Amino acid sequence: MSRVWNFSAGPAVLPVEVLQEAADEMLDYKGSGMGVMEMSHRSKVYDNIIKEAEADLRTLLNIPDNYKVLFLQGGAHTQFAMIPMNFLHKGKAGYIVTGNWAKKAFNEAKKYGDIVKLASSEDKTFSYIPDCSDLPITDDMDYVYICENNTIFGTKFWELPNTKGIDLISDMSSCFLSEPVDVSKYAMIYAGAQKNVGPAGVVICIIREDLIPEEKDCFPGTPTMLQYKVHADAGSLYNTPPAYGIYFCGLVFKWLLRNGGLEAMKEKNIAKAKVLYDYLDSQDFYHGTVVPKDRSLMNAPFVIGDKDLEAKFIKEAADAGFVNLKGHKITGGMRASMYNAMPIEGVEALVEFMKKFAAENQK
Amino acid sequence: MSRVWNFSAGPAVLPVEVLQEAADEMLDYKGSGMGVMEMSHRSKVYDNIIKEAEADLRTLLNIPDNYKVLFLQGGAHTQFAMIPMNFLHKGKAGYIVTGNWAKKAFNEAKKYGDIVKLASSEDKTFSYIPDCSDLPITDDMDYVYICENNTIFGTKFWELPNTKGIDLISDMSSCFLSEPVDVSKYAMIYAGAQKNVGPAGVVICIIREDLIPEEKDCFPGTPTMLQYKVHADAGSLYNTPPAYGIYFCGLVFKWLLRNGGLEAMKEKNIAKAKVLYDYLDSQDFYHGTVVPKDRSLMNAPFVIGDKDLEAKFIKEAADAGFVNLKGHKITGGMRASMYNAMPIEGVEALVEFMKKFAAENQK
Repeated sequence: MSRVWNFSAGPAVLPVEVLQEAADEMLDYKGSGMGVMEMSHRSKVYDNIIKEAEADLRTLLNIPDNYKVLFLQGGAHTQFAMIPMNFLHKGKAGYIVTGNWAKKAFNEAKKYGDIVKLASSEDKTFSYIPDCSDLPITDDMDYVYICENNTIFGTKFWELPNTKGIDLISDMSSCFLSEPVDVSKYAMIYAGAQKNVGPAGVVICIIREDLIPEEKDCFPGTPTMLQYKVHADAGSLYNTPPAYGIYFCGLVFKWLLRNGGLEAMKEKNIAKAKVLYDYLDSQDFYHGTVVPKDRSLMNAPFVIGDKDLEAKFIKEAADAGFVNLKGHKITGGMRASMYNAMPIEGVEALVEFMKKFAAENQK
Repeated sequence: MSRVWNFSAGPAVLPVEVLQEAADEMLDYKGSGMGVMEMSHRSKVYDNIIKEAEADLRTLLNIPDNYKVLFLQGGAHTQFAMIPMNFLHKGKAGYIVTGNWAKKAFNEAKKYGDIVKLASSEDKTFSYIPDCSDLPITDDMDYVYICENNTIFGTKFWELPNTKGIDLISDMSSCFLSEPVDVSKYAMIYAGAQKNVGPAGVVICIIREDLIPEEKDCFPGTPTMLQYKVHADAGSLYNTPPAYGIYFCGLVFKWLLRNGGLEAMKEKNIAKAKVLYDYLDSQDFYHGTVVPKDRSLMNAPFVIGDKDLEAKFIKEAADAGFVNLKGHKITGGMRASMYNAMPIEGVEALVEFMKKFAAENQK
């Protein structure tokens, strides 16, 4: 078996140790005589798995007791609808549009109420985070929404917007568990698992419990499955959950705890990103596309500025074992995603490859 | 490693061969240098996986070309809402209530229109399938809905209802791929994967394509993710799908094809169920709870009629390696689920255990 350096933006590289553990337990989970995929979600053995996953996540993020942790299905796209369906009571919310997913969330929310675009960075292809110190936020807004790390465009909110006392909801999909977070600053955090945590098909929601509405306070016709309360009351076991995915997330949580938790992870992620960004800033063959102060630690887009050379780069990189470096179809160019499970050695090797390619192709 | 005989109703036993294959490929799928969980769902290698899964399912079920196959998230519970949100155009539908899941689907649909209970077997704890030869179906109904195999109560429609020309929608979750099916008799078939196919978190929908509505013809405020058209137009890749689960389902489809397809599976399932039902009918210590002509091949509930003895049975069975035999909390008693991946040897061994237990505990 030979592993590649996988720079995919998601689904993405996972820790080898955890993959091995899952493989070893596939036919027999800890002497139960069955694999996790085969277990009743109502069994004691599975109940321990999901409860431990939640407890470990609470430890990692130091989640206050007045927040619920939910493991749901449907990805961020389902959250785009669930959030306004559950939380629009006054009927108005503010969205900060810093990329494709924030824009999709904004457009979906418009089905359910008066949705205000508070700020946007679309004028410069989402290459920066707008000034959010004094936005047109009003008291009649139910919440302010951000996408905290923009996977496609490689930007990150390094300072939270001034919401003027309005509840903040954050899509953290692509930076979740990459660093410590003060959960109490948020009304809700959610993240698709397939970036930093586990397999696609699990979305993790952390919600301040006083926010979770009764059915009568949701948008008319909100499906039962799209009501947070239903899942919160049932401890994520209202129906059959994505049980194997949750188990796998739990293994990743334990891997993070074994490896020093989120403080240690943040240090590693800073060190990794520095290797790539320092190189990008030291030469002029490649160009980072993001305003330096807003750069994501997770997703680093860059271009050469010549489509043929970029195609050649992506192909030769893949041949050399650096895969999934093609930028999103919206942006073109290249993108290196460096989630928790990408070791610094992978980024160092990529930079060596980039140097070699630049030397060979410099005009 | 010692495997138990797992009679869980779902998530349920999966083929050992397939679990082993998934374990072997966990860190490196066919020389790609990464596991399936780590792959971009937009990559060529993953595209092959999902396309092959669909093609194999089409072969297995002989699905006509004018039917779409969708791999979705959210389980049957999300379908309970999606179906009326997408298909209620005249605003009226008929439901046949033969168990807990049919009843939940019926109640959820009532949020979206005029939903008629065409027939029910609730009067006798759902222990039979009602006569469906002349139901009060009217021309102004958009569809007729059934749950074809009732997991909790162990009944099965062996004859489809006379829908008087109205489109039929079937929840096949717990009998999907257990036997050949004439797909053309249905407007839509759907099934949660976690019974006969794979891990929880994937639901497979087979829909006649002329039925799939535009957004404007869906219930007002239907979330984008809950519109079949969005997924149909994108080949189940509108957003990140439950990619690993779909891969696993694909492995099971190949296992079914290698083992003679659904005709062979049906023969095996008949033979397996016969072992248990013949024994139940040959003695009077245990009692099957279902009217014999309506018995499911997949789920066989039975009772002793003495709660203490039943608890003792379940405990001693588990100690002897027969697990998940406890009936659903609604029914009590016992239930043996015998999905495709349960070999006949498991059912034979269970019957031997039942004989021994009866001999030891006969009053």
